[in-house]
Amino acid sequence: MRNIKLTIQYDGTAYHGWQIQSNALTIQEVIEKSILRVTGERPKVTGCGRTDAGVHALNYVCNFFSDTKIPINKIAAALNSGLPPDIVCKSAQEVPMNFHAADSAVKKRYTYRILNSEFNDAFMNKYVWHLRGTLDFDNMVKASKAFLGEHDFLGFASSGFSVKTTVRTIYSLELNKSGELITMDITGNGFLYNMVRIIAGTLVFVGCGKIKAEDMEKIILSRDRRKAGITAPASGLFLSEVYYWEE
Amino acid sequence: MRNIKLTIQYDGTAYHGWQIQSNALTIQEVIEKSILRVTGERPKVTGCGRTDAGVHALNYVCNFFSDTKIPINKIAAALNSGLPPDIVCKSAQEVPMNFHAADSAVKKRYTYRILNSEFNDAFMNKYVWHLRGTLDFDNMVKASKAFLGEHDFLGFASSGFSVKTTVRTIYSLELNKSGELITMDITGNGFLYNMVRIIAGTLVFVGCGKIKAEDMEKIILSRDRRKAGITAPASGLFLSEVYYWEE
Repeated sequence: MRNIKLTIQYDGTAYHGWQIQSNALTIQEVIEKSILRVTGERPKVTGCGRTDAGVHALNYVCNFFSDTKIPINKIAAALNSGLPPDIVCKSAQEVPMNFHAADSAVKKRYTYRILNSEFNDAFMNKYVWHLRGTLDFDNMVKASKAFLGEHDFLGFASSGFSVKTTVRTIYSLELNKSGELITMDITGNGFLYNMVRIIAGTLVFVGCGKIKAEDMEKIILSRDRRKAGITAPASGLFLSEVYYWEE
Repeated sequence: MRNIKLTIQYDGTAYHGWQIQSNALTIQEVIEKSILRVTGERPKVTGCGRTDAGVHALNYVCNFFSDTKIPINKIAAALNSGLPPDIVCKSAQEVPMNFHAADSAVKKRYTYRILNSEFNDAFMNKYVWHLRGTLDFDNMVKASKAFLGEHDFLGFASSGFSVKTTVRTIYSLELNKSGELITMDITGNGFLYNMVRIIAGTLVFVGCGKIKAEDMEKIILSRDRRKAGITAPASGLFLSEVYYWEE
């Protein structure tokens, strides 16, 4: 028996997120079927977390236990031969038996992309949040500093989650602008339900003047969802990286 | 009556190229229907050239004559409100009555993209030619020089075209490599049917050692399609720019 860690890239447009559902196609289901096809085994694949419908991943991590005799360096290619083009297994590694894709994760990085242009883009529309009108980028950068460090992010979570604590630590939040594309990179020890999308939506509210940059600290402290901005659409969100102790 | 020039961006994946066909959906048909919806007129839209099924465009140019009273600076937005997300009208301009999207063009630039990696990419697969195995990039660059200038490109055309002459002038051909992505940018006064894709396929044959860089001149002179490489797939090809006298 081996514990196998997979790193997966997916375009989430056509899927109802990671986690298996009875009535909709999910990434987990496609991965489990692909493992069955390759190994003949029906594994339970453990993901590093849920992702919502339409959210993308550059490096999603999951793991499963297997008795397959296939050499570890052949597993990614074997899986890819049966996966649809919008899901790619980038690598497979053998990991210690106690590795757990969700519980062993110590840090995650998400990327949120905003296309700030008159018209949407024929190629990027499924991978951005398209916004017309000028966004004050400098004010967004100013406001973004308030998220750094340890905070109770209760006001930046959608309802419908159950967690022990709503305290999370943000290690970095970088905003970059390249032409009409604004990119937010955020790293933290964990994220509440919809937290990255609500942070993105709130920074956009700052960008268009609906929230003042200097009020951001107060809004976080209020722990009141209604004081933050809207939940930005799924299309702009990418799970970019999951970090583990051994790395 | 005004002559209106449109600059269009499209993801060609879902379309059977530019030109209207009786039994398949094309870009021209979608554009003409969109103009009908906006102006109430049924114009004949003239394109800058045919593009094949699955080929993309960053700046496709077409023109049509119209009596519409809609101000020219509102036309792109009006069209976009009814266009599918994979076709975007980037701009509309009023042009002299003798402007003809195809006949007035003096120069075109195409871009061909190759993803040279072990696995294809979940996001880029519809916009590249994916190739495994190492390509000798330096040899490809060396061979590419032979295409510059005026040549009879009969050997770099698929059959099924009718043109007065198969002589064309290539003004520039640049190859760039960024990580696993190889990009070919080619500018010329015109291109024969499938010419850019055959040049891309031939340079890939050089990259994997099937054709010698130093034989390229001879192969062009031979005017023999069988001596060139394969026709590279449509997915990697973008019509990037069309140039006109007035610009």
